[in-house]
Amino acid sequence: MIEATSNAVEVTFLPDGKTARVPRGTRVNAAAAMAGVFVDAPCGDRGVCGKCRVQVKGELGPPTMSESKYLARKLLDDRWRLGCQATIQGPCTVIVPRSSLQIAVEGLGEDVSLQPNVRKAHVELPEATIAEARSAFTRLRTVLAMPRLRIGTPALRSLAAALATPDGLTATLVGDECVTVEVGDTSASCYGLAFDVGTTTVVGSLVDLKTGEELAVSASLNEQALYGADVISRIKLAIEDPAGVEKLHSQIVRVLNSLIDDLLKQAKVDRAHVYEATIVGNTCMHHLVLGINPASLGQAPYAAVVQDAVAIPAGDLRLNLSPAARVYMLPVIAGHVGADTVGVVLATGLHRADDVRLAVDIGTNGESVLGSRHAMVACSNAAGPAFEGTSIRYGMRATLGAIQGVALDGDVHLSVVGRTAPVGICGSGLIDAVAELRLAGLVDESGRLAGPEDAPQGLPQALLDRLVAVDGERCFRLSPEDGQPVYLTQRDIRELQLAKGAIFAGIQILKRQLDVSDDDIAEIDLAGAFGSYIRPDSAQVIGLIPKVPLERVRSVGNAARVGARLALVSTAARAEAEQIAHRVAHQELFARTEFLDEFMAAMLFPKVE
Amino acid sequence: MIEATSNAVEVTFLPDGKTARVPRGTRVNAAAAMAGVFVDAPCGDRGVCGKCRVQVKGELGPPTMSESKYLARKLLDDRWRLGCQATIQGPCTVIVPRSSLQIAVEGLGEDVSLQPNVRKAHVELPEATIAEARSAFTRLRTVLAMPRLRIGTPALRSLAAALATPDGLTATLVGDECVTVEVGDTSASCYGLAFDVGTTTVVGSLVDLKTGEELAVSASLNEQALYGADVISRIKLAIEDPAGVEKLHSQIVRVLNSLIDDLLKQAKVDRAHVYEATIVGNTCMHHLVLGINPASLGQAPYAAVVQDAVAIPAGDLRLNLSPAARVYMLPVIAGHVGADTVGVVLATGLHRADDVRLAVDIGTNGESVLGSRHAMVACSNAAGPAFEGTSIRYGMRATLGAIQGVALDGDVHLSVVGRTAPVGICGSGLIDAVAELRLAGLVDESGRLAGPEDAPQGLPQALLDRLVAVDGERCFRLSPEDGQPVYLTQRDIRELQLAKGAIFAGIQILKRQLDVSDDDIAEIDLAGAFGSYIRPDSAQVIGLIPKVPLERVRSVGNAARVGARLALVSTAARAEAEQIAHRVAHQELFARTEFLDEFMAAMLFPKVE
Repeated sequence: MIEATSNAVEVTFLPDGKTARVPRGTRVNAAAAMAGVFVDAPCGDRGVCGKCRVQVKGELGPPTMSESKYLARKLLDDRWRLGCQATIQGPCTVIVPRSSLQIAVEGLGEDVSLQPNVRKAHVELPEATIAEARSAFTRLRTVLAMPRLRIGTPALRSLAAALATPDGLTATLVGDECVTVEVGDTSASCYGLAFDVGTTTVVGSLVDLKTGEELAVSASLNEQALYGADVISRIKLAIEDPAGVEKLHSQIVRVLNSLIDDLLKQAKVDRAHVYEATIVGNTCMHHLVLGINPASLGQAPYAAVVQDAVAIPAGDLRLNLSPAARVYMLPVIAGHVGADTVGVVLATGLHRADDVRLAVDIGTNGESVLGSRHAMVACSNAAGPAFEGTSIRYGMRATLGAIQGVALDGDVHLSVVGRTAPVGICGSGLIDAVAELRLAGLVDESGRLAGPEDAPQGLPQALLDRLVAVDGERCFRLSPEDGQPVYLTQRDIRELQLAKGAIFAGIQILKRQLDVSDDDIAEIDLAGAFGSYIRPDSAQVIGLIPKVPLERVRSVGNAARVGARLALVSTAARAEAEQIAHRVAHQELFARTEFLDEFMAAMLFPKVE
Repeated sequence: MIEATSNAVEVTFLPDGKTARVPRGTRVNAAAAMAGVFVDAPCGDRGVCGKCRVQVKGELGPPTMSESKYLARKLLDDRWRLGCQATIQGPCTVIVPRSSLQIAVEGLGEDVSLQPNVRKAHVELPEATIAEARSAFTRLRTVLAMPRLRIGTPALRSLAAALATPDGLTATLVGDECVTVEVGDTSASCYGLAFDVGTTTVVGSLVDLKTGEELAVSASLNEQALYGADVISRIKLAIEDPAGVEKLHSQIVRVLNSLIDDLLKQAKVDRAHVYEATIVGNTCMHHLVLGINPASLGQAPYAAVVQDAVAIPAGDLRLNLSPAARVYMLPVIAGHVGADTVGVVLATGLHRADDVRLAVDIGTNGESVLGSRHAMVACSNAAGPAFEGTSIRYGMRATLGAIQGVALDGDVHLSVVGRTAPVGICGSGLIDAVAELRLAGLVDESGRLAGPEDAPQGLPQALLDRLVAVDGERCFRLSPEDGQPVYLTQRDIRELQLAKGAIFAGIQILKRQLDVSDDDIAEIDLAGAFGSYIRPDSAQVIGLIPKVPLERVRSVGNAARVGARLALVSTAARAEAEQIAHRVAHQELFARTEFLDEFMAAMLFPKVE
């Protein structure tokens, strides 16, 4: 009897069996959220889409007008209700069909539930009457139950043009703004784009915003490379050439537009149905995409022009999308730690981790982040272009013919991109090669490559034969004797020492900042198109990353782009990205004398155990 | 003793002598507002502009850091303080110099205080440091003390470009958004535009937003007239020609751009320093300016596409202004009662009047509004083009040679535009002519023009000689015998009867709606470029407007444009405009059988008293 008069009642959600105790009068969707069950209500619980159908056994309030409208008599008789409308009046069991659950989109850490910034609603606009000749926009507000709905010029024009048609119209909503109106029911066609703009490579993906599914991926070289391989050369052009910013901006816009063309073609999607693009990139690329002069990034204190998230019309960037389309640039952390790093953190879930993790993004411009949900610190990796192959004698990107993996086992075993004869070596191959030579005793702690005369005793002749001098420089021949020669040179090893030393020294500073030892690091995430191909054991042999048990090292691929995709499909993830940018404390390495000390030490190779 | 311990103290503001009793601790500006004295604080009382200087005798709190920054030691010693900072601690007398008072901008009713949506702030951006390399935009937020400041792409670009200069920078702020950044101190150059887009004529003015002063006015024909003189013909084109809307939109944009060019040239103002334009117009012109298809205005129930105020980038309309410039379209009331009517109400202050007033805007498309601060009703005047001269045999606009005034006094006395020989007759001349003929007994109640044979006895021969037949139609010769002939025809009188009948019948419906008699009408405002030239006595003789004592009839000129200008210089006026659009109840005349009855009656001329 006491229970019957108590206000709180228990609700069980099937098939999960999760429960919540809620006050009588609570709406089913609210109770579900309390139980950790997320019912999909595209209209935002306003009772105007009829999508959040659930079947309920137990005591509920009577059906509302909205339920009578969206549920046939037969369905209501079978105890189907709308979760946003029905109120709980006694103990209930609620069956949430799979079709009514929010879709979870895969991240690399925790998944996020599908909750895009863009949604489409098909509506029949009520007729105006002589007695109440309300404007079309006012009637759209009413039928969408969005009294605060805003509208811009392109959408007003499309609204006027859609009035005369009999099949209703579909409004595309971005937040509380109607960005376009289409004739008939086009609500199934709702797409977005996610871009990672790197210094060397630009990757984009086309995402179905109704499912979170990635429909197509396309990559291109960043044509700005015409003006120099690294960020510094681009900043220099922006400073020295009055038209420099415009040149660089146009280049990157051209690349983005060609990726858009390719993605639309691959997935056979109509350009008009792409409503939003999210973009990550290092701070310099971020500024150049926006057409902002990055000069301030080129000199101490390396302050960005803007670090907050930026949401703008796609037309501002001359992207070849509909006038309704928007761009959301994820926020940057600092002048040298960009939105790509925010994307890596978001995708790996580092910011929500209980234990300390390290994420290392290795690319033309890479960054390291160390921390957990309690605190995060980051620095940029002044690694130079060694890993991209630029400063390496036979260096190349990981394209056809690139040595991407090396093993020494009596002789040299190569893994070559495309399984062809090798023509050069890419970053992961370089790391492997040096690690293997180090393990074989052919490279010492200081980085010196042995010659045939001072090689350790007992090595197979096949290896010793590869120790040669080319133009007076010590080299190790990687290629077979009969093919096109590919050598690893003494200078290449020095370049690698500089690059890995810079990264490792940065990580040391971050560890000191958070008072963390290697033992405390629960996970190391290797990110970046290139980072993913590194063999973790080789990375540890050369001293690129801290020595943690190998099972704690994970390759997470292009995590920055995954972050951009999560921000595209989830406004909650977007809000997290903005918090991440505020919470990560940036460590400027140039300003620290301790960095130089660490750097000198880190250039040496670790002892072989 | 009791007073000394009481918390409230009296503050007197000079030179007005206004007083307020305020709690101790109240800031001077807040106390001033309570006394009805409006101190100008361009930074919004944030202590970052140093403009709200007042001289105080009495007990105040100690100077704040902001006061120490903006007031030299000598000024502080002379008891000068910043009104937004200084707190009242005891009875005070505050001298508010004229330079610290808000500027009042002249309306036609009550004046409004200068409070434009656009303001400029010259600031020195603090340097970024290695320890805290905050982005330029973050530092701009800080120095402006606007933590919620937003910024768009053009402003980010200009911010990046302005960083390297030594003279500080000037941010232009529209609401809480920074729309552009200029190098050095350009805060004195801040301009806006106000347009009235009529079916026949477009008028624009250039306004100094620092003073509210109108620097230049320019007018042009609406070149859309190529496609038809009235709104109906334009709507028809929009419906029938797929490119019709774009043609009409381009035409009006071209006109607006040529007016902008002329205004900038007249006032020698740099285009880059124009930041906002406000626009009024009837609903059809409003839609065409926006590039919205006005088809729905052409058929019952005449619903607009959008009736709310619209604030958009000027680039959406292809106006030739800086990328930072905005457009604010005042709201419309209904499909046939537009933003121009909102402008008339705003300018005349009808919405704030205690007594009932009537505003009649006469033009190609005119409207009437009746009411007071308690209630307002409006209808459109289906007057047709008679007043514009289009359907009148010798009709013409009020340009060189147009008869604009007529008096009969033994013979005919004409007032001709340009004091030349008459070549035609414009609207005000038409009204005068018919009124005078009516008073002379040459036009009867039914509108019939006398012939020489049935003219009243005793009229001077000079008048009788003017009663002639031309092509079998009764006419009255207005022109002298020796010049180019200008006749008033029987058909012209019929056209006038239709036009004035429609307006008067509408007014009757409005009066009935509010249960108001002629005696209750405290003021009649005749608005519109043409309305201003009508002789009120003639308007009453022909029965165009209600018979109220003549001193209650006022010509208010282009009140719609004054309304646009008030909305430009005052955000408070803008908010009032939005309230007006909601509060005015539109009366659709076509839907009422009573209108036809009123119309039939109103076509007759009133009895001559």
